[in-house]
Amino acid sequence: VSDFEIDWEREQRTGVAEAMLCVGKSAAQIDAILEAAAGRHLLLTRLDPDKRTGLRAELDYDPLSGTAFFGAGAAATLPGVGIVCAGTSDLPVAQEAARTLGFHGYDAPVIADVGVAGLWRLTARLDEIRRHRVVIVAAGMDAALPSVLGGLVAAPLIAVPTSVGYGVAAGGQTALNAMLASCAPGVVVVNIDNGYGAACAALRVLNRTIRGR
Amino acid sequence: VSDFEIDWEREQRTGVAEAMLCVGKSAAQIDAILEAAAGRHLLLTRLDPDKRTGLRAELDYDPLSGTAFFGAGAAATLPGVGIVCAGTSDLPVAQEAARTLGFHGYDAPVIADVGVAGLWRLTARLDEIRRHRVVIVAAGMDAALPSVLGGLVAAPLIAVPTSVGYGVAAGGQTALNAMLASCAPGVVVVNIDNGYGAACAALRVLNRTIRGR
Amino acid sequence: VSDFEIDWEREQRTGVAEAMLCVGKSAAQIDAILEAAAGRHLLLTRLDPDKRTGLRAELDYDPLSGTAFFGAGAAATLPGVGIVCAGTSDLPVAQEAARTLGFHGYDAPVIADVGVAGLWRLTARLDEIRRHRVVIVAAGMDAALPSVLGGLVAAPLIAVPTSVGYGVAAGGQTALNAMLASCAPGVVVVNIDNGYGAACAALRVLNRTIRGR
Amino acid sequence: VSDFEIDWEREQRTGVAEAMLCVGKSAAQIDAILEAAAGRHLLLTRLDPDKRTGLRAELDYDPLSGTAFFGAGAAATLPGVGIVCAGTSDLPVAQEAARTLGFHGYDAPVIADVGVAGLWRLTARLDEIRRHRVVIVAAGMDAALPSVLGGLVAAPLIAVPTSVGYGVAAGGQTALNAMLASCAPGVVVVNIDNGYGAACAALRVLNRTIRGR
Amino acid sequence: VSDFEIDWEREQRTGVAEAMLCVGKSAAQIDAILEAAAGRHLLLTRLDPDKRTGLRAELDYDPLSGTAFFGAGAAATLPGVGIVCAGTSDLPVAQEAARTLGFHGYDAPVIADVGVAGLWRLTARLDEIRRHRVVIVAAGMDAALPSVLGGLVAAPLIAVPTSVGYGVAAGGQTALNAMLASCAPGVVVVNIDNGYGAACAALRVLNRTIRGR
Amino acid sequence: VSDFEIDWEREQRTGVAEAMLCVGKSAAQIDAILEAAAGRHLLLTRLDPDKRTGLRAELDYDPLSGTAFFGAGAAATLPGVGIVCAGTSDLPVAQEAARTLGFHGYDAPVIADVGVAGLWRLTARLDEIRRHRVVIVAAGMDAALPSVLGGLVAAPLIAVPTSVGYGVAAGGQTALNAMLASCAPGVVVVNIDNGYGAACAALRVLNRTIRGR
Amino acid sequence: VSDFEIDWEREQRTGVAEAMLCVGKSAAQIDAILEAAAGRHLLLTRLDPDKRTGLRAELDYDPLSGTAFFGAGAAATLPGVGIVCAGTSDLPVAQEAARTLGFHGYDAPVIADVGVAGLWRLTARLDEIRRHRVVIVAAGMDAALPSVLGGLVAAPLIAVPTSVGYGVAAGGQTALNAMLASCAPGVVVVNIDNGYGAACAALRVLNRTIRGR
Amino acid sequence: VSDFEIDWEREQRTGVAEAMLCVGKSAAQIDAILEAAAGRHLLLTRLDPDKRTGLRAELDYDPLSGTAFFGAGAAATLPGVGIVCAGTSDLPVAQEAARTLGFHGYDAPVIADVGVAGLWRLTARLDEIRRHRVVIVAAGMDAALPSVLGGLVAAPLIAVPTSVGYGVAAGGQTALNAMLASCAPGVVVVNIDNGYGAACAALRVLNRTIRGR
Repeated sequence: VSDFEIDWEREQRTGVAEAMLCVGKSAAQIDAILEAAAGRHLLLTRLDPDKRTGLRAELDYDPLSGTAFFGAGAAATLPGVGIVCAGTSDLPVAQEAARTLGFHGYDAPVIADVGVAGLWRLTARLDEIRRHRVVIVAAGMDAALPSVLGGLVAAPLIAVPTSVGYGVAAGGQTALNAMLASCAPGVVVVNIDNGYGAACAALRVLNRTIRGR
Repeated sequence: VSDFEIDWEREQRTGVAEAMLCVGKSAAQIDAILEAAAGRHLLLTRLDPDKRTGLRAELDYDPLSGTAFFGAGAAATLPGVGIVCAGTSDLPVAQEAARTLGFHGYDAPVIADVGVAGLWRLTARLDEIRRHRVVIVAAGMDAALPSVLGGLVAAPLIAVPTSVGYGVAAGGQTALNAMLASCAPGVVVVNIDNGYGAACAALRVLNRTIRGR
Repeated sequence: VSDFEIDWEREQRTGVAEAMLCVGKSAAQIDAILEAAAGRHLLLTRLDPDKRTGLRAELDYDPLSGTAFFGAGAAATLPGVGIVCAGTSDLPVAQEAARTLGFHGYDAPVIADVGVAGLWRLTARLDEIRRHRVVIVAAGMDAALPSVLGGLVAAPLIAVPTSVGYGVAAGGQTALNAMLASCAPGVVVVNIDNGYGAACAALRVLNRTIRGR
Repeated sequence: VSDFEIDWEREQRTGVAEAMLCVGKSAAQIDAILEAAAGRHLLLTRLDPDKRTGLRAELDYDPLSGTAFFGAGAAATLPGVGIVCAGTSDLPVAQEAARTLGFHGYDAPVIADVGVAGLWRLTARLDEIRRHRVVIVAAGMDAALPSVLGGLVAAPLIAVPTSVGYGVAAGGQTALNAMLASCAPGVVVVNIDNGYGAACAALRVLNRTIRGR
Repeated sequence: VSDFEIDWEREQRTGVAEAMLCVGKSAAQIDAILEAAAGRHLLLTRLDPDKRTGLRAELDYDPLSGTAFFGAGAAATLPGVGIVCAGTSDLPVAQEAARTLGFHGYDAPVIADVGVAGLWRLTARLDEIRRHRVVIVAAGMDAALPSVLGGLVAAPLIAVPTSVGYGVAAGGQTALNAMLASCAPGVVVVNIDNGYGAACAALRVLNRTIRGR
Repeated sequence: VSDFEIDWEREQRTGVAEAMLCVGKSAAQIDAILEAAAGRHLLLTRLDPDKRTGLRAELDYDPLSGTAFFGAGAAATLPGVGIVCAGTSDLPVAQEAARTLGFHGYDAPVIADVGVAGLWRLTARLDEIRRHRVVIVAAGMDAALPSVLGGLVAAPLIAVPTSVGYGVAAGGQTALNAMLASCAPGVVVVNIDNGYGAACAALRVLNRTIRGR
Repeated sequence: VSDFEIDWEREQRTGVAEAMLCVGKSAAQIDAILEAAAGRHLLLTRLDPDKRTGLRAELDYDPLSGTAFFGAGAAATLPGVGIVCAGTSDLPVAQEAARTLGFHGYDAPVIADVGVAGLWRLTARLDEIRRHRVVIVAAGMDAALPSVLGGLVAAPLIAVPTSVGYGVAAGGQTALNAMLASCAPGVVVVNIDNGYGAACAALRVLNRTIRGR
Repeated sequence: VSDFEIDWEREQRTGVAEAMLCVGKSAAQIDAILEAAAGRHLLLTRLDPDKRTGLRAELDYDPLSGTAFFGAGAAATLPGVGIVCAGTSDLPVAQEAARTLGFHGYDAPVIADVGVAGLWRLTARLDEIRRHRVVIVAAGMDAALPSVLGGLVAAPLIAVPTSVGYGVAAGGQTALNAMLASCAPGVVVVNIDNGYGAACAALRVLNRTIRGR
């Protein structure tokens, strides 16, 4: 009872490579899977520093986002996605999205700390944000940022609620609901803290747009 | 088992007159209370048009907000409060606040339809909003408006979530939580659709400020 | 206290025209807004047949989706979006998406009744689904359809939970959560029953891809 | 205040032996109960490795599922149940079911990693799954697997939601609700992570079918 | 956008015929589906008396359960299932299960009003209950009945929570949770008020046991 | 900002002495309060063993329930209350009730492990239970015990939900709701794990009955 | 499938007569049960005026509480219970308790409109409240009344949350939780709007105290 | 991806200086921000003792509230706010409010342990409470204190729910809801444990009143 079948054909079918969620897997299980994957490349997510230390495999590891690249990845040079977030605490999620895009060859810059409570910070960088084909927005607490951006930007807007906050923030549930109930039309949403999923959604759009898949 | 004791001294103790919530009371019960209150003045809230038609008492009735004044009220001439809302659907709640303030002698204008998805609508009226000593903000769905206003306005900001919206809007629960989790510091909140309560809170501030109570 | 300011410039800013949500507005309020909008075109959503009967304005009305077009719309001829749904009960939501796309010039076919409990119904139409640049999926109850499709289709996948079902279906909340927790990466989600929002998200993608906005 | 009365007759009444849930019991309490049970056999569940180390009793312990057999059990040779799960993270729950069945004499294989996002993995093993008289399905997150299987398999289908996932997965609550709202008729469900309960339900079916109890 | 594809092969694949849930379908939609189904037989559920009156099709209709048989059904003569419920208010759900079984040829008696608050009512009929191969239990409010029965009966026990009760009963949510958290091992559960689903689960067991499918 | 005013007169007013909830208080704060209370007696609740070790004060401490007596208490000799619970895991809560009653002079025996899944265990001790003037019932998970007892016992029945269980047990919320929705009339309920509160409620009854207060 | 077995022996076993909850039963079902009950007496609850009009049986009906007495009841002359409530809207629930007690021979006065926002109203009637052996408190919204009373009164205090209020009042859920989390020890609680249950609990106490059962 | 832009102009725009929430930031991140802020003053909140120990910066740190002042603050001498709380466990939140006010120059005394279960404690200090222009009330569990105070005090009343309590207290959610549903009009509420936000709201009122901003 220990087999793990990587869906290697998924990238061909959907343009998005399968990733390995490390939460709930032991270091031994991860090492076994990576050994079987030798010669291929694989993205690992939610790998905390302690577990990473216990792994034998060679990895390009980023502690802020808890992501790791196994095997040689493509150079991250393609443009197309901008990642916007409201505060320092949202950076791990924003960075998970950036790393996932990097693994697929895209260079996605993070524009941090443009929360709406100081609106000038956002307007100052609006032109920079508008330059991207797809915009990912990570925000916690009241998550007002996607609603404001949604009225200012024409690009597809992928909102990621973060679990930042306390009390009624409820581990990101309020941010999630506020994003789904956004008064700005056409904002789409992924699961709480799911920077990986937001990046995959951006890849689906970009594959169609840039690569014509 | 039918007595209703109006707390007539409450206005003296707290500066806010007791009001009668008409939901859950029959027309006959309301008429009986009003007869006993002859010679005094009383604010009625949540009085729907059908029930109002069934009442004998003479009332100054406003169908949009479902409020009524019983007895001669003061002229509503005092300045001090501005009421801001995001959309037409929030008007009944905004108007409940305006009428409650009117009953206590304040003339509180309603600035409608300044939702953040079209930010220019808000900035165009910012100076007008800043002129007030207290600002009440009614908003539903994602309720991003108080967070944006909270960073732009120095006045006390009383946020009223409205039950506008569907799905995850959850009858105003998401708006409520987003307001409580607002990234703008010092925003205070009242119950969903509670325009009356927001006005009472404004009265507590104004009584201290203007009237020196 | 009755002004409604249509954000006519929104289409220019975001590629998505503002729509009027008719829930919570009286027939009189809607007629007043439409009179002020004479000479322009406007999409109305959540307009139930009874309220529509009470309107003076001339409208292209679709009772299944509760949508109406005011003013002459563009011919719906552009390809690009396919709308998939699991059952007859999901049709009103699927049709709201189709009509919103139609209002913006896109001809989006609805592929109905391909629920996963009879998997052959889905596989039989997979080639047809794969032909579209963007796929909208409406599903209620357990909402397993987007997860299955997400592994089979490379296009951007916009999932709309519907309020179909009873008991733990909880008015679409379970479908919403299942979509957000989908094991297929890159599925994005909008509010429950929000066919309009799904279409707007598709427009954001298509505007970038086809029209190069 | 320390007596624990094992319901030794339960197996005779219901065909399912009583088990001891070790969560919430100290090692000393467990040892005392086992001493009183000398000469009988007993299944222990939710026994974590640390607590197991602190026990004096001799046990056949399985760390993956946290189960232990006390006393000599029957050989696990009877066929009848297949256990299917969507991912490596669901294995502890699947294994708890397998061990519970093993304790009662059944040899139940675990078919792992057949999640619906890579549908070919499931179809490749469908014949193997169909061979069993009862099928247990463990799945977390969106739990789409039982809905897909439910339309393909005629056997009784017992679904176990697992607490795998984050954010809206909500500790298994979304998987639970999706299973209960399944569009495939006749899927039955047990509590979150309750592999033991699923096995007991399978035993109730098998006792009637195979053993004619 | 109006096609409804009945999954006629489902009965062959799973032993359970597809049924048509009438909630959310108009009388016109139902008549159209039934016309297309001429010559076959079909089970209709959640058909309320008003909608039934508006149908042209000839049906064997049962108002208590809101079920209808279209086309000639098999005679209901097979034994195997007993249906137990706690009170008169649970009867519609119990009867939906009985009718679904009847449509598939089983004669399943309903044993009503054996709630645990008067334990003698249950014990008086225990032998009768024990005679069945599968037992369905419908209960609302605190749903203590399956826990008590689960310790007394060896047969597979399929529990159906009902939406009977008020306040914390929460439309059946408390009954559902109590059944899932039952202290009696091996109780399985279906969605709230889902008598149809409970019957389908019983059919899966019986098909294996009696008919050897 | 550190004063803690014990409400010493509460016992006189209500017959129930104030207790000190130790959760959320540091050892230093507790010691300071106890020093100020020298010469009186005080009940401490929710005092875990680690914190107790850090205290200077002399206490009669019971680790199972986390209660401590400060000062010489009365001898616990008065009869009147029986405490019933369903399993070993409920003992800490049952014991908190017993200790609180002991502090007030009552000797309340605990009758453990009479869960309804093995009904004979309950019926075997029914006469013993019926002998008490007030019965406290602690139960977790599905909490079926108070419903069964409520139909068998005439005494006031105070139900305490416990946080025993996992998944849908939800930290005692399901037990709480099942008790409140009990089909046995006149069962009253206190907060989850609140053995102290159940004992206080029993004291209110006994003070009236036995002591004539 | 239509039998309803009244548990006539319940009164003997528990001191509380079984009542018939009329919600979910048709007028025809109620009449059938009452015919079978001829010569006995029975309490009916939740009988709304429309359904009462449709009944053939002779009843002593009280529309405020929706209760009816069937058969000659005892004269309501016994003292012992006081019923306190916070506002006019709580009267139906308070009256359901009063009528249930009246059916069992107790004359329980209702002390209305003593909400804590006007504390003098409560203190003015405190001596009257203290005179009773058992006190029932009905309150909605924030339900602060039982906490205040709990510190002032030594009698058993049975709190009934009412569904009065809107928004976060959540149909009585907030009142229920506030009562369960009361800072006054020994307050016990029943289900939302369950005046009948509160009265039954009071009967359990009184039977022990006054009648020595 | 590491910039943190302090909104230094916020104090000028809103009268409330930006604070740094330390939860979710590493000691290294905090030190970097403080170095960039040299020469200015900044309030830090939610800084736990362990993290404080790891900081290089010189701070005026208060462990009870977890707040720190960076840079020389104004002397705290201005009157105007009183902070009331129900118990010792609420002190950290009350103190966070006091420290935030102190940082802005206000000397706000904390009046602790005046819970309503011992009403005399509150009435004894009512005159002292009434002397303040704004009153902040921190309370957990059932949060009855603001309702009682709201009827006795004319000042603006800012209620802070605290996460004190267990079971249904639900981490402060019940206190929050009870405050929002308060029967005393004009009580306003901030997020759970948000002493900082309550102080900011008080500052908004005081800036208008005392300083005429």
